[in-house]
Amino acid sequence: MALSNVPLPTFDDVLDAAKRLSGRAAVTPLLNAPLLDAELGGTLYIKPEPLQKTGSFKFRGAYNRISRLSAQERRAGVIAYSSGNHAQGVAAAAREVGCPATVVMPKDAPPLKIARTKAFGAEVVLYDRYKDSREKITEELQREKNCVLVKPFDDRFVIAGQGTVGNEIADQCAALGVAPDAVFVPVGGGGLIAGSALALRHKMPKTDVFACEPENYDDTARSLVAGERVTVDASKPSICDALMSPSPGEITFALNRRLLAGGFVVTEAEVRRAMAAAFVQFKLVVEPGGAVGLAAILAGRYALRGKTAVVVCSGGNADPKLFADIIREAA
Amino acid sequence: MALSNVPLPTFDDVLDAAKRLSGRAAVTPLLNAPLLDAELGGTLYIKPEPLQKTGSFKFRGAYNRISRLSAQERRAGVIAYSSGNHAQGVAAAAREVGCPATVVMPKDAPPLKIARTKAFGAEVVLYDRYKDSREKITEELQREKNCVLVKPFDDRFVIAGQGTVGNEIADQCAALGVAPDAVFVPVGGGGLIAGSALALRHKMPKTDVFACEPENYDDTARSLVAGERVTVDASKPSICDALMSPSPGEITFALNRRLLAGGFVVTEAEVRRAMAAAFVQFKLVVEPGGAVGLAAILAGRYALRGKTAVVVCSGGNADPKLFADIIREAA
Repeated sequence: MALSNVPLPTFDDVLDAAKRLSGRAAVTPLLNAPLLDAELGGTLYIKPEPLQKTGSFKFRGAYNRISRLSAQERRAGVIAYSSGNHAQGVAAAAREVGCPATVVMPKDAPPLKIARTKAFGAEVVLYDRYKDSREKITEELQREKNCVLVKPFDDRFVIAGQGTVGNEIADQCAALGVAPDAVFVPVGGGGLIAGSALALRHKMPKTDVFACEPENYDDTARSLVAGERVTVDASKPSICDALMSPSPGEITFALNRRLLAGGFVVTEAEVRRAMAAAFVQFKLVVEPGGAVGLAAILAGRYALRGKTAVVVCSGGNADPKLFADIIREAA
Repeated sequence: MALSNVPLPTFDDVLDAAKRLSGRAAVTPLLNAPLLDAELGGTLYIKPEPLQKTGSFKFRGAYNRISRLSAQERRAGVIAYSSGNHAQGVAAAAREVGCPATVVMPKDAPPLKIARTKAFGAEVVLYDRYKDSREKITEELQREKNCVLVKPFDDRFVIAGQGTVGNEIADQCAALGVAPDAVFVPVGGGGLIAGSALALRHKMPKTDVFACEPENYDDTARSLVAGERVTVDASKPSICDALMSPSPGEITFALNRRLLAGGFVVTEAEVRRAMAAAFVQFKLVVEPGGAVGLAAILAGRYALRGKTAVVVCSGGNADPKLFADIIREAA
């Protein structure tokens, strides 16, 4: 597979992003729940990105990209397409940088995500996921406004920004004197895991990094097995709205095929149980897509007994009614 | 009012507790939600103790007390009475220290709290809040087992341990370059706020510290006005099970009357709205008693416009069904 003529992000790009995000993004802590460890017979830390500004890791990449715009580019602003977390990240980052933002969102995106994207000051353009072409709408608007497209994952600076999650995990593990056997990361297009793996593989080369995906959207797991980018049927509904990417990105997969140890796939029932566990054990609101890593551990996809692992919980913009149903059914 | 012959804890005791808790208790971050700030017209940080080990700040004081037991005392173990958060704190601290723990709990305590206290390895003895004498049951068991009573708040080392919350707030604000106008702290018996105020008043003398309590259990607010300890009727139900203390502690009030700027009282409806706001804005599970400080701010008890405040959210052991109801009604 030939790569486009773009430079792949490196570990140095992640360090550079970390500097840029210092004082802008929250340094989320590593959390441990002793009662859960006792159940699992191992040691589990979570990296809670629901506590990040905008409620997901997406602010990191968006700010790392948008803060590099020239003065002229800032005047015209940015455009993005997203089901909601990248949308909020771009809207919030644009607001901090002081430039206008337009976000193209599916009209069936969680209402909370649409409302919050607007609240961060972005202009939201809705489209029909099953009829309209998101790419065409975005392209037309971009041309009309002459603004910069902030891609959700297939961008050097976006990947490097998301990679600060992995960079912080490595530093926090070192401070705790912990050498994790594995790190589990939710995967949509693969930006978070690609950037994080750059830092993790550099700083903790003995630690395996695994991709976690929901059923029907296991394009990265399949691609890792096939050795090339595989596309899945993206017409199926999923509660993991943040991870409904039909195929890995070009740049992200070029990194991930080299850096990852493999991929795990979880069912929706497993995701719901993981969200309930995050509520009880960590007092954390995790949205479905953010919980696939925790779901993989709790469902026993990886034998944690006697081992230590870190799971990234990538976002917390959960629909209140869905969340209420899930914790009720687990009670 | 004559004080018993016990030394009042000092700021140095808090620093000493911070050393002892280092690597044992989580250093919870300060969190900010830009969208909430925009609504409030000020700057609000929360200190999220639901993320603390055992789901509330109570582990801090319990560990600071229990880790000081002599070898002989450890063999006999500890006893405590609690509606659930101190119970878990004592159980978890005793487990880490390696000593047995007995906890006397009301049988109408939230089932989650009883279950988690048992899971941390404590022996749980249930009593009827409206018929039995908690003190008598505890006293008899203490004599029988010849073990050490770990008081929930009126103890020098417990207060100093809880004070590490305030100590971290002061250090984290300094690191952010933020000088808060006020800090808001939930109050039951007053241990968390007394210890925290020792650190806050020492490190940030210009910052006011306010007690926050639920309706019907506003004993500290009344006591601050009266200048002496006032007892309220403790027979009324409250969703804030963690704060149903009928009167301030002797030691805690001796500190609080000197250190606090005043007290605020919130209604149950305001507490429910604050829990829903913590869900949406901070992705955090806060239990009713843990949310009274946030409720005071959101209900406008303090004019935040143009100001900066820190609110301690003290615990997150919320009953799943109650939590589901609350986020549903707010959706």
